[in-house]
Amino acid sequence: MGWAEQYEKDTCAIAATLSVVGDPWTLLILRDAFLGVRRFEDFRRGLGVARSVLSARLKKLVEYGIMRIGTDELSTGRHDYLITPKGADLFPILLSLKAWGDVHLYGRGAEPHASKHVCGHHIDPKFTCAACGEPIRYGDLRVETRRAKTVGETLARVRG
Amino acid sequence: MGWAEQYEKDTCAIAATLSVVGDPWTLLILRDAFLGVRRFEDFRRGLGVARSVLSARLKKLVEYGIMRIGTDELSTGRHDYLITPKGADLFPILLSLKAWGDVHLYGRGAEPHASKHVCGHHIDPKFTCAACGEPIRYGDLRVETRRAKTVGETLARVRG
Repeated sequence: MGWAEQYEKDTCAIAATLSVVGDPWTLLILRDAFLGVRRFEDFRRGLGVARSVLSARLKKLVEYGIMRIGTDELSTGRHDYLITPKGADLFPILLSLKAWGDVHLYGRGAEPHASKHVCGHHIDPKFTCAACGEPIRYGDLRVETRRAKTVGETLARVRG
Repeated sequence: MGWAEQYEKDTCAIAATLSVVGDPWTLLILRDAFLGVRRFEDFRRGLGVARSVLSARLKKLVEYGIMRIGTDELSTGRHDYLITPKGADLFPILLSLKAWGDVHLYGRGAEPHASKHVCGHHIDPKFTCAACGEPIRYGDLRVETRRAKTVGETLARVRG
């Protein structure tokens, strides 16, 4: 059985999210969108991806409300792909992928992209508990499994 | 060009991390490892994945120092796959995938797994800046691109 079929019958928010954005190209499209890319041709050139693949991935992102198509202010008729608020909530996923690669693959000081927070400090993102303000680390969670819908059922509902 | 080749020549910590753990099965293996699974047969049964696929993915995780092979206390000769500290640093990636799926796919109250922090509150993880303590949101970063190695060069060095 392939991973897509496994995801479908799983009952898990991680598998559900991966079904929507876990495709390797999709995460790079989102990365570039967060960096300000908006045009089909700019995504295509930047990623070196086939038009058919890019088109299918963007269509899925629009279908799930992660990106929307806008027209630019100059009314040239060209389409922009814009991140929606729902898409903006994917930012922590990209940030955590970056943080791990910076520390454990590139190493401190050799990061390809240095990021500063608006406060002026280099980013060292930490997940904190919104209630107590303490960091959330592996081992700090108590997980309780509930009856819930499968990924397949859930995605069918989200797509409408 | 496929995504793996594109990743190789990219200069990006996100692409580097995805090259190592971005495979769809790998992220589910890590999810189960964080939930306490340690044995090859338990991963295989839980995921419904082919032995050859699981074996290759676990080998790669060990190769990159994300998991290590330990023997159990009873010395039965069986191997346990254990998360290393480097692997534990992947936890925010899984947590952010879960958080988005809980909110935007399953919806509040219908999450398959409810997580409480050790403080007793339901988890609502937020990335905060370690320096100023303020939340890090899309738009809060100033990104500066540096000369850096490609993903291919970087992974060759990490693997030794």
